[in-house]
Amino acid sequence: MTDSQKPIGVAVLGFGNVGSQVVRIIEQSADDLAARIGAPLVLRGVGVRRVADDRGISIDKLTDNIEELVSRDDVDIVVELMGPVEPARKAILAALEQGKSVVTANKALMAVSTGELAQAAENARVDLYFEASVAGAIPVIRPLTQSLAGDSVVRVAGIVNGTTNYILSEMDSTGADYASALADASALGYAEADPTADVEGYDAAAKAAILASIAFHTRVSSNDVYREGITKVSSVDFESAKALGCTIKLLAICERLTSDEGQQRVSARVYPALVPLDHPLAAVNGAFNAVVVEAEAAGRLMFYGQGAGGAPTASAVMGDLVMAARNRVQGGRGPRESKYAKLPIAPIGFIPTRYYVNMDVADRTGVLSAVAAEFGKRDVSIAEVRQEGMVDEGGQRRGARIVVVTHQATDAALSETVSALADLDVVQSINSVLRMEGTTE
Amino acid sequence: MTDSQKPIGVAVLGFGNVGSQVVRIIEQSADDLAARIGAPLVLRGVGVRRVADDRGISIDKLTDNIEELVSRDDVDIVVELMGPVEPARKAILAALEQGKSVVTANKALMAVSTGELAQAAENARVDLYFEASVAGAIPVIRPLTQSLAGDSVVRVAGIVNGTTNYILSEMDSTGADYASALADASALGYAEADPTADVEGYDAAAKAAILASIAFHTRVSSNDVYREGITKVSSVDFESAKALGCTIKLLAICERLTSDEGQQRVSARVYPALVPLDHPLAAVNGAFNAVVVEAEAAGRLMFYGQGAGGAPTASAVMGDLVMAARNRVQGGRGPRESKYAKLPIAPIGFIPTRYYVNMDVADRTGVLSAVAAEFGKRDVSIAEVRQEGMVDEGGQRRGARIVVVTHQATDAALSETVSALADLDVVQSINSVLRMEGTTE
Repeated sequence: MTDSQKPIGVAVLGFGNVGSQVVRIIEQSADDLAARIGAPLVLRGVGVRRVADDRGISIDKLTDNIEELVSRDDVDIVVELMGPVEPARKAILAALEQGKSVVTANKALMAVSTGELAQAAENARVDLYFEASVAGAIPVIRPLTQSLAGDSVVRVAGIVNGTTNYILSEMDSTGADYASALADASALGYAEADPTADVEGYDAAAKAAILASIAFHTRVSSNDVYREGITKVSSVDFESAKALGCTIKLLAICERLTSDEGQQRVSARVYPALVPLDHPLAAVNGAFNAVVVEAEAAGRLMFYGQGAGGAPTASAVMGDLVMAARNRVQGGRGPRESKYAKLPIAPIGFIPTRYYVNMDVADRTGVLSAVAAEFGKRDVSIAEVRQEGMVDEGGQRRGARIVVVTHQATDAALSETVSALADLDVVQSINSVLRMEGTTE
Repeated sequence: MTDSQKPIGVAVLGFGNVGSQVVRIIEQSADDLAARIGAPLVLRGVGVRRVADDRGISIDKLTDNIEELVSRDDVDIVVELMGPVEPARKAILAALEQGKSVVTANKALMAVSTGELAQAAENARVDLYFEASVAGAIPVIRPLTQSLAGDSVVRVAGIVNGTTNYILSEMDSTGADYASALADASALGYAEADPTADVEGYDAAAKAAILASIAFHTRVSSNDVYREGITKVSSVDFESAKALGCTIKLLAICERLTSDEGQQRVSARVYPALVPLDHPLAAVNGAFNAVVVEAEAAGRLMFYGQGAGGAPTASAVMGDLVMAARNRVQGGRGPRESKYAKLPIAPIGFIPTRYYVNMDVADRTGVLSAVAAEFGKRDVSIAEVRQEGMVDEGGQRRGARIVVVTHQATDAALSETVSALADLDVVQSINSVLRMEGTTE
């Protein structure tokens, strides 16, 4: 193999944080990349919404005609970094149908259209890589699809959204409330002007759908993911978490469940949860991401690193691009599924979990017993109860606060118990309800 | 693709902890594996040194004629789990020359013969996979060769030997001395009857050679790795480590160094080092492994999990086996280097690092000044000094102990300073010298 090998042509769609880093690496590391691929990697053009002369790239490489760029005969691989679902989907399908391999970082798209895109790649016998769609620079897709291809994954739990992890870490370390931690994250550029996609868990849900699909060799879309955001997490929750030896993290959890009759179901869910401080995810702070994978033979693995940002995400894109280019040069294709199962999705009520409930109650005898009875009626076993009196500003006792941590029960039984508690006369308010991660008691 | 696809035949060489788990998974997960590969995976035979009827496998699958098993026409992939270097090398070369793909967990072999074996695989256009040779179940080889293929790795630092990590974790948590922690590790089966390969760092050095080779796209053999074991680490070292906010870990470190003139060199080294408690490797305890990778675009990544044991290592072997089998079914080959650099190895004296020195000195004026002068003469800057008086059993002062932590300097300058200190009249003994990880000051 020599450098006289026919070059591999690349079209990059999108020139934001990630796209500009990918273009920089393609140009600055040309010699190293050529050595690793076995042929030069040549940037044919960059597709943008509007061509302008101030982008730090020679203007003749820029085009707003994406359809034409993708169709060029000298483009072998299309790198899609435009987002959101459209027009990215249309451009990727066009590329695949014309026999070009595709690398994408588009989680929203991969979370709804994996089946369609994988089929188009299969029909054209080309590669479709999407490592950068989950957890930025951290290799997660490749370990799940390749390294664990001969093992059986049982569970994936991760911190996959840097914005919410920054906010929750800030609340934990400074005692700040949600609103001021969000304001800090915005000021530092960690949160967008409209933070909904992050704080309501939509971004994490898309990643959970992708992780569940590849971990369990089935199809899970973002619509299948149960989702709760972090907007209701309060400083009171963090105080209680500390008292319990925990912190609070927004988790994306994917699980394979086997019923007593041997039927397999899949659960994918995103919610804030109490995480014990000795759990490996508890120490993942700020804008970092981490994913814990549990497999039958491998046991527990953890992958940790920067989950967002131009350069880290570009690293993942470049890894995929080099693989796709090598396959072009050497023949062959990257791994993909031959068969996908269609495992049913387990509804959230079915999931075994643990709850933490924090409530204000009237300060009189029999209250704790009434509260405990509601748990008992639904076969929910209590692991820990703490009760403390509360005084008002004048120093008068005016009620009590009860914190309950349960053993494992179904989410439905736990959620019904909380509703019933809210209806009790002696319960003044339910201050906070959180699930608890990391134990199976 | 249907199940009527021609089956992929597998020969497993070796039937110990890992081999028996691999055979179990091939047989118990046959349906899942066939779906993922696109063809059934069929075990043709297991090569062992001596055939016996008590192995939990039908005896007609066992053979002591490894040459014949490897040569069978219906064997497409050979899984080598025999160790050590020979006869594994001969069997692998024979397999590759006959056009069979090879999966191996043999670190000792891969650390000395990568070039030869990679060339044989290249000539035959078949796959050679070795994920299980480093850090058991933890995907490290694949992320380095694939996920980071478009990035530039600067440094790899890992805990890659479970036996020594168990011993050091035990010394840290219980205050035990080396001998009794080793005895505990032996009693629990974490250390072998002859623990030399582990405690003297040979096992970690083989892994460092493999990691350096693939991280920097060059050839590094175990003989190129600077190596110190843990046998001299004492409970005094751990006391000092704690006072400095550190623990002690046996680290395998691979680094790419660029001289002022732009010349690139590679360093691979294994030694016990002080690790600050806020460093991600400090929390990796017991028989667990972890590898931290720093790359230019990706930043810092960490991979964590079980580094040894039959089932975890089998998980890594099975991932490679499924990939090799998929490539057989679908055409194409896994990734491999088109070009390897031959970067020179940087001698240990050249490496910038920090030292911690613990010494007993005479208790009289001017001693600290004499000690500090030896550092100053070699341009080694001192970061921290602690001096305390020592009393003998009768309550009499009989000397002082000085602990010095340096700023960064070359290993040669630091090592010369320690030799010079040992020659000073006022220095009674050098109790301990350790390098320090995790800071670049």
